[in-house]
Amino acid sequence: MIPLPALDEQSETPLYRQLFDAIRVAIRDGVLPPGHRLPPTRELAGSLSLNRTTVSAAYELLDQAGLIRSHVGRGSFVAEPSSSPISFATSRPLDELFPLDEFRATVREVMADSSIAAILQLGAPHGYAPLRRYLGASETEDVLVTNGCQQALDLIQRVLAPLGTAVMVEDPTYPGLKNVFERGGVRLIPLPRWEAGARLAIVTPNFQNPTGHTMSLAERQQLLGDAREQGVTLIEIDIYSALRYQGDALPSLVELDDTGSVLQIGSFSKVSFPGLRIGWVKGRRDLIARLAEAKQWTDLHTDQLSQAIVLRFAESGRLEAHRQRVIATGREQLAAVATALDREMPYGTTFTRPDGGMNLWVRLPAPLDAAALLPEAQRVGVNYLPARYFAVSRPEPGAFRLSFGGLTPERISAGVALLGEVFRRESPDVHPELLTAMV
Amino acid sequence: MIPLPALDEQSETPLYRQLFDAIRVAIRDGVLPPGHRLPPTRELAGSLSLNRTTVSAAYELLDQAGLIRSHVGRGSFVAEPSSSPISFATSRPLDELFPLDEFRATVREVMADSSIAAILQLGAPHGYAPLRRYLGASETEDVLVTNGCQQALDLIQRVLAPLGTAVMVEDPTYPGLKNVFERGGVRLIPLPRWEAGARLAIVTPNFQNPTGHTMSLAERQQLLGDAREQGVTLIEIDIYSALRYQGDALPSLVELDDTGSVLQIGSFSKVSFPGLRIGWVKGRRDLIARLAEAKQWTDLHTDQLSQAIVLRFAESGRLEAHRQRVIATGREQLAAVATALDREMPYGTTFTRPDGGMNLWVRLPAPLDAAALLPEAQRVGVNYLPARYFAVSRPEPGAFRLSFGGLTPERISAGVALLGEVFRRESPDVHPELLTAMV
Repeated sequence: MIPLPALDEQSETPLYRQLFDAIRVAIRDGVLPPGHRLPPTRELAGSLSLNRTTVSAAYELLDQAGLIRSHVGRGSFVAEPSSSPISFATSRPLDELFPLDEFRATVREVMADSSIAAILQLGAPHGYAPLRRYLGASETEDVLVTNGCQQALDLIQRVLAPLGTAVMVEDPTYPGLKNVFERGGVRLIPLPRWEAGARLAIVTPNFQNPTGHTMSLAERQQLLGDAREQGVTLIEIDIYSALRYQGDALPSLVELDDTGSVLQIGSFSKVSFPGLRIGWVKGRRDLIARLAEAKQWTDLHTDQLSQAIVLRFAESGRLEAHRQRVIATGREQLAAVATALDREMPYGTTFTRPDGGMNLWVRLPAPLDAAALLPEAQRVGVNYLPARYFAVSRPEPGAFRLSFGGLTPERISAGVALLGEVFRRESPDVHPELLTAMV
Repeated sequence: MIPLPALDEQSETPLYRQLFDAIRVAIRDGVLPPGHRLPPTRELAGSLSLNRTTVSAAYELLDQAGLIRSHVGRGSFVAEPSSSPISFATSRPLDELFPLDEFRATVREVMADSSIAAILQLGAPHGYAPLRRYLGASETEDVLVTNGCQQALDLIQRVLAPLGTAVMVEDPTYPGLKNVFERGGVRLIPLPRWEAGARLAIVTPNFQNPTGHTMSLAERQQLLGDAREQGVTLIEIDIYSALRYQGDALPSLVELDDTGSVLQIGSFSKVSFPGLRIGWVKGRRDLIARLAEAKQWTDLHTDQLSQAIVLRFAESGRLEAHRQRVIATGREQLAAVATALDREMPYGTTFTRPDGGMNLWVRLPAPLDAAALLPEAQRVGVNYLPARYFAVSRPEPGAFRLSFGGLTPERISAGVALLGEVFRRESPDVHPELLTAMV
């Protein structure tokens, strides 16, 4: 039998959340071992004098958190401890949304195409010509197809920002960017500091990773003006802009630029299938030619089958249809994460409120340390990346990235609830009595 | 006049692709004979009520397919069937042998697999786990999947032979190897010279590119002994060994080694489909872990769909069946190239006689200069790579690589005959009378 927790009707924490926490702790401490059958909702509601829907809500949250497994007609059982953690650690799309039938139809069409033998043969460093045309390669602008955005950054480092040069970046920034430039022996300068002699400025104007920040029109124009004045090439990472869930789109740096000083990085990975590594760089022909040469000695060219498949997926209209579904879900994810953070985080927590993308930035109140608390979060089955992976110059011990793109709204709520519990336990604002009452 | 194809605006196939297919079929069926002038894009766009860019895109594709020749200001003409140049310049398989039906069946099976959603999601830097297991990842040895052999070399340079180090290589060597190490600031030392302090020795024991040379057992053992004594890591490029057309296989360096000092590079590209960029490095776990870390900041991971497809192609037995057909054809290619060279090259020419692979090395007698003669060879429709692309320390002006893997025996004979004619014309040993008689 389940040990009956003392629930507090006066608490600001809803009863179902209190019940969820109590059962979660009982599972964590082994009081309820794996395989243990929980009492039916009706029975537990009766013995605790609760509404049955309260118990159902708690069970549902436990199920979403992977702590129990519910089977219709058989009941709910404590899950094996290792059962799927809730990971806020990776900026990725929700695979439950993958349109598998549309993908299969796309592949069938590519397979039926007469050009399949050419696709399977060695290709050109620049990429598959029909895909490059689709992406806007023209007389004035060229396109290099890369293995996702990451390789575009790697090639840009190797060609445009060699050992010993300086590059301006946002702070905090995407770890894959930080890593590739630091390993290439490049000095990173945190924007908005502007250093004369720096080779490049690399920014993500829409839904930046990790903060979710979107640059205003004035900020964009300022950046372009500064770059023009100082002869700095701008790298615009544009991989999230198609995932706007609310608000109006702003013109991209490329659209605002009239000097050819912007290289834009795009990718199909965030909007469709990250397992297919297809990204690109678009810009001035001479710069793209230098990047394509590096591409050739790096790995000859990007996988052609996947290039042909994403092209077909896009040309057939399936990509746009899928994007609309992703946006509808993104709106729900965004609402779920904001609601849960507002409710669950300790007093004094702040967080960014993006209009799209997959990431936001949470700052816990001092003295909470997101890196130090991570092992405890992982122990309760939740994962995230603390600020140190993203920091260029400013350590923010209380901060972490919360990537919500890969989780359903329900899993987001459950995960943030678990995190909130870990953080509140360490938070000086919580009364010890209250803490005891909850356990 | 061109027969007007019925294009379907409702079709999911883009209009330019439909137009391309219609014209392609008309050329194939002789409706549009060689030399026929296609209508100007504007005119055809008018009569078909199409956008002119649609017609231009179709013509561009036809041009790339070698089906038409476009000349600025003169128009586009149906190409001679045989007028596509005979290229001995690329080490690639014969695409006429691509088993398209087997490939399509493989893709259908992968698409029907329940793991497809996981394949389309972000993967692990090391590669797709089932493929790594297939390639022999174990407790003692690990496997990193790369974008073909080229990326394996790039990662090895970046991790194991950084700027300022020295690496021993065969001379002549593969241009992709030379390039990537020289650009990485590595000093190349031509084997058999052995330099104390060099980090790596990189060799292709079977059917080396460009010479086709196979190391004897004694040479292999000597190399392993030297490497062991000097603490040098050996990189064994093993991408051609599955393509032995005659003679008995010798044990690989990995098989002869008992000290864990060999990293072996493999690839599916030479034996199956180079457009799918799947290669790997196999060896000691600590070395593979360092390479995998570099792989992650380079491009996260290799395309997962293609990894799943080549795995299925291999596991189903189709790869081995295909390999047997490639070997049977390779035997014919090898016989054709040797016979043609014996017959057609100027007196004093020597060439290597490989037992497999795709390449051999031709040395023309002095004062013939293979680089200087290349434009003339290209004018008669034949292409090859002169020695300077491969040279590490010894210039060999008379030498060039002849890559025969991508051509049918008939095209090989025709191409070598054309080359022989160009070279003999420049050769002092040929009597003017004989020359006249031949021309």
